[in-house]
Amino acid sequence: MAFPWARRTASDKRDATMNILIEGTYSEEEREVFDHTFSRHNVTYLDDVTPEGDMGDAQVLIFRSWRTVAPLLSSMKRLEFMQYLFAGVDRLDFSSIPSHITVASCSGSNATPVAEHAFAMLLALSKHIKEHHESLSKGVFSQQSPLAAELAGKRIGIIGYGEIGARIGRYARAFEMEVYAVNSTGTSDADITVTLGGLHGILHDLDFIVLSIPLTVHTRGLIDAKALSMMQDDATLINVSRGEIIVEGDLYEHLVSHPDFSAGLDVWWHYPHKGARWEQAHPFLELPNVLATPHNAAMVEGWRLRTVRYCSENVLRYIEGKEVKNKVRKEDYLM
Amino acid sequence: MAFPWARRTASDKRDATMNILIEGTYSEEEREVFDHTFSRHNVTYLDDVTPEGDMGDAQVLIFRSWRTVAPLLSSMKRLEFMQYLFAGVDRLDFSSIPSHITVASCSGSNATPVAEHAFAMLLALSKHIKEHHESLSKGVFSQQSPLAAELAGKRIGIIGYGEIGARIGRYARAFEMEVYAVNSTGTSDADITVTLGGLHGILHDLDFIVLSIPLTVHTRGLIDAKALSMMQDDATLINVSRGEIIVEGDLYEHLVSHPDFSAGLDVWWHYPHKGARWEQAHPFLELPNVLATPHNAAMVEGWRLRTVRYCSENVLRYIEGKEVKNKVRKEDYLM
Repeated sequence: MAFPWARRTASDKRDATMNILIEGTYSEEEREVFDHTFSRHNVTYLDDVTPEGDMGDAQVLIFRSWRTVAPLLSSMKRLEFMQYLFAGVDRLDFSSIPSHITVASCSGSNATPVAEHAFAMLLALSKHIKEHHESLSKGVFSQQSPLAAELAGKRIGIIGYGEIGARIGRYARAFEMEVYAVNSTGTSDADITVTLGGLHGILHDLDFIVLSIPLTVHTRGLIDAKALSMMQDDATLINVSRGEIIVEGDLYEHLVSHPDFSAGLDVWWHYPHKGARWEQAHPFLELPNVLATPHNAAMVEGWRLRTVRYCSENVLRYIEGKEVKNKVRKEDYLM
Repeated sequence: MAFPWARRTASDKRDATMNILIEGTYSEEEREVFDHTFSRHNVTYLDDVTPEGDMGDAQVLIFRSWRTVAPLLSSMKRLEFMQYLFAGVDRLDFSSIPSHITVASCSGSNATPVAEHAFAMLLALSKHIKEHHESLSKGVFSQQSPLAAELAGKRIGIIGYGEIGARIGRYARAFEMEVYAVNSTGTSDADITVTLGGLHGILHDLDFIVLSIPLTVHTRGLIDAKALSMMQDDATLINVSRGEIIVEGDLYEHLVSHPDFSAGLDVWWHYPHKGARWEQAHPFLELPNVLATPHNAAMVEGWRLRTVRYCSENVLRYIEGKEVKNKVRKEDYLM
């Protein structure tokens, strides 16, 4: 069984005109990026396609919504390459994507704002900014209760030392922290680097733990009651990855029983449908030792346009037979 | 007119036994630092002195409270050296300190936590951490309103590029910001450095402005309506120096009329007497674009002990005829 893509060579690709289907709603400026980047190819926007249009010819699919594209895949017989416009692909069902199709994420395109956000939460918790602001709002001048912590000289463990994690490591070094990294190779520019297998061995050393690792079958539930029990009682845990890296109930119980432990959470276990009320299975926001943001770490001015540019360039790399960035290892996501 | 100190040489000092008076209340651990550092000298704690004790013999005075020591100075005929235990000496009345007395601050001893605190406020404002936390507390999931800002590629102006400012500059470079510095020499490791005279010329370039400059006759009211009007409408101003660097009413009016402008304030114009209600002449805390902390930037775990160590070593440098750190230029504080 041979698919067309398997027979093509890099030079074939450079010359071929490709059919590119783009799912999602885009601003004029964003469409201009797509149209300009793919000026030599056939670009179709799913938003513009009449029912039963010609999207079945698409060889490349650029998409934001898995739920929208999932039912279309079976009819897209020529599909070779799927470019997702988000970094985390854990919501995709890889069992329903034919194995010959390459899937790429846009991991890294928003690494800088996400790393900044993680550090913002870490500093805000260390300095008790929220509590101090609230006290002054009530006219209460309380300088040393709660007492702020200093970052310099402390140890930070960065679980997932990729585009995001390595940036956090760079910030931490500027703040004179000792950097522990957890990655898949066990080597990095950090002071100490271990693989996931070594995680439990370092947890007790860490004053700060940042989760910036993809959610895969290997990392789901990584931070459970056992891992939490190995952390220092006054450690600070930051999650800018995916809620499910942490066992929700275990973290809630730990925060209740360890008031000096704190968590900065940008990602959650439960997301509201549009306009609906946001809530989790446990009342995290009632705890004083939780700082929360609405999964907006990547969302800074211009982030959508940047994602569109980053992904368009990646698709062009595929079309031109160059090495594609962020190819997803599907086996990491299949149970 | 010759004072004893003027006749002494460095080697004399090294051999002399000095009378050191220490004002302030200290923990046992802090007293141990003093006692150990000055084991070859006569140390007296003002707290232990009976009324009309022998403090008139003191040649060195270490103090925390200007109000306590001010009335004693006229009777301390042998006083040569005063070591203040805080960084900012603006609350001292230099006109009542005899001109032959050297005054040193502990500027720099807490530079790291203060720089960290400034950056914590800057990041918290950029990422709208407070608003996002409050929204989630109400069950409202609003990712892009307010929309976070990115630090990378932005310009930060650090007004006062000493121990604190240079650290902030180092953090900012790690965050890929362009660093403007204002200092007294016009040269530094920043991308662009100007003196105070050049301040107005750079204000419009800056996305972030951090005040980390001492309050002197030259800097009081530095940030007034005119300076504020030169800043970008959505600039962020951080003050970890002294409230009076900014004209209180001018900043309040500017924040009201420029809702995209924001201020992170650790220092204030008015401080409460112990236990009294904290309030300013304007209701800053009612504004959504203000983030406030209670002048606690320097106050992290162990800060008092660190200050005691730092100042003790400085006093020892004086006694041993070595170069003293943080000698105050009194003319900067005399109108």
